[in-house]
Amino acid sequence: MRETLAAWRPAIDDAIADLLPREIDADYLEDFFGAPTYVYDPESIQRGLADPVWDLLDRGGKRWRAVLFLVLVEGFGEDPEELLAYACIPEILHNGTIIVDDVEDEAAIRRGEPALHRVYGEDVALNAGNALYFLPLKVLERDPGDLPAEARLAAYEMLTHELNRTHLGQGMDIAWHNERDVRISRAEYLEMCACKTGCLGRIVARLAAIVAGQSEAIERHAAAYAELTSVAFQIGDDILDVENSLGRAGDFGKEFGNDVREGKKTLLAIHALEEADPADAERLRGILGADTNTDEEIREALAILESAGSVEYARERALELAAEAREHVDALGVDPDTAEKLAAFTTFVIDRDA
Amino acid sequence: MRETLAAWRPAIDDAIADLLPREIDADYLEDFFGAPTYVYDPESIQRGLADPVWDLLDRGGKRWRAVLFLVLVEGFGEDPEELLAYACIPEILHNGTIIVDDVEDEAAIRRGEPALHRVYGEDVALNAGNALYFLPLKVLERDPGDLPAEARLAAYEMLTHELNRTHLGQGMDIAWHNERDVRISRAEYLEMCACKTGCLGRIVARLAAIVAGQSEAIERHAAAYAELTSVAFQIGDDILDVENSLGRAGDFGKEFGNDVREGKKTLLAIHALEEADPADAERLRGILGADTNTDEEIREALAILESAGSVEYARERALELAAEAREHVDALGVDPDTAEKLAAFTTFVIDRDA
Repeated sequence: MRETLAAWRPAIDDAIADLLPREIDADYLEDFFGAPTYVYDPESIQRGLADPVWDLLDRGGKRWRAVLFLVLVEGFGEDPEELLAYACIPEILHNGTIIVDDVEDEAAIRRGEPALHRVYGEDVALNAGNALYFLPLKVLERDPGDLPAEARLAAYEMLTHELNRTHLGQGMDIAWHNERDVRISRAEYLEMCACKTGCLGRIVARLAAIVAGQSEAIERHAAAYAELTSVAFQIGDDILDVENSLGRAGDFGKEFGNDVREGKKTLLAIHALEEADPADAERLRGILGADTNTDEEIREALAILESAGSVEYARERALELAAEAREHVDALGVDPDTAEKLAAFTTFVIDRDA
Repeated sequence: MRETLAAWRPAIDDAIADLLPREIDADYLEDFFGAPTYVYDPESIQRGLADPVWDLLDRGGKRWRAVLFLVLVEGFGEDPEELLAYACIPEILHNGTIIVDDVEDEAAIRRGEPALHRVYGEDVALNAGNALYFLPLKVLERDPGDLPAEARLAAYEMLTHELNRTHLGQGMDIAWHNERDVRISRAEYLEMCACKTGCLGRIVARLAAIVAGQSEAIERHAAAYAELTSVAFQIGDDILDVENSLGRAGDFGKEFGNDVREGKKTLLAIHALEEADPADAERLRGILGADTNTDEEIREALAILESAGSVEYARERALELAAEAREHVDALGVDPDTAEKLAAFTTFVIDRDA
């Protein structure tokens, strides 16, 4: 999987640069956004859009959404090289959401450097992030793949549907973050993941099915595969945060237990509150709801998660989701090589170490 | 015009409530956003979306974008009552942009009360504002007007085009706001208005033409009318800020000269910097570029704008744009009553007093 990701990356970045070049001039603006009524100011767009977005892209990111799209369209019998512009749609949308999420979460760091709003200001970062919600849709309008009109309409309707649910998911996440108590169920947590993370995965898969002219049944299986994989990915994130912390909670000066520290309502936390001894559960609830905690309290909370079996529970749940995802891969009817790549992808997102 | 606006308002608010009810429950979420994979949390959506959005809507706003849409479709021979859901598209988009703009501008007040992010927090306000960028597009997917597929595709492409340019406009505005010096031309300023304010007007007009099955020529005239009117509206705003300030600059305790205070690069400021005596222009440049100014300095700047003839210049420019807008109305071939309403609308946005 790592090789597939690395192999595609330069072509993907070139395709993104076709949509948003590193250097903005009036010709690009006129060609891409249409003629101005009066006159554009390319300098503003350089500093307010191209600079921050390429700063973020150049910091890294696996571009896995674009690669997953390319693997899928190839499995559906299309030439992925011909469809690179469409692969950029979910990738650019994703980068838009992380810029905006970082403002909403008051994040300090993104990909090892200060979050974009810390570098460029909230106003510039937000407008750049929001611009990335609409910029990739131009691909459908410009239509380099010469898609039939019904495919383009289906793509717009699909994007409308999924991007609406993305905002429901983010709304749930924000609401819970602002609540002191943990009142939600495991099912509500999984729904938040399915909406917030899953819908971008669904966009990848459904767009691949749509541009490759697949049936609605295939589109549904591809979407379910991507959603399940995305939810498993999110649970993998939650597990990593606790496991890495358990491993190095004693290391001097290292941040650990960040999710507990932020009072995040992860699947592990919800499980532990339901399954731990009442006294432990009460203690965990207190630590999660506190404004600040000592390192000792964080260690205590992590120990409760561990002894309640919440890490194992979450891993089993992620593996179940991955197994379900693979069933949908089988229903896709793609060649064995593609099926294997898709399955490896699901394993990769759970077993990764960062 | 005021009567037309007031008469439509209750029906428009009912139509908005059909899309985003004041009270959120699981049935609404399932019907509007589709079945959940697991289970929704309606409480989060109530507090994170419906509450803040209806708070904003109930504070006022003229709903002029929706009304203009209804006047246009009626002029194009359609029954406006049947198309109320489509009238909500630009209105909801507009409210989304003002929530986000207020975060970007660090605005304190909106419609006489604290800006939404001051009431609900930046995270909730931003996600609600962004959700409003996609929520109204569901109207096209749900298609209550039973539009032909090509009209729906045209609407999506139009929205993609215009919402991209909206973000270019906001990007220019933000970039200039962050610059101390005024380096831009009148044409660049007008382009910023055409993109930032004009594109939402263009959405109103083009959507009306599209749902009413008008020719591309008619759509272009309607769009030009709405864009010119919107730019005139923006210049009207800039004039109001200076005129109200000139009138009450002596009043005790009242804020005045806000645009100058914020160093805003308005058409009036750009004109004065080009046309005032060199010494006056230098002084104005210094006041606009300063981090803070005394009331005396603001009064001085306002006096320079007045003596350079910048208020008159801006008013003449707005009237020229309004006259141009009316020429496009003539080309629409609508009935005299509609034509009169459209012309009155253009006058209304320039001559308003708030």
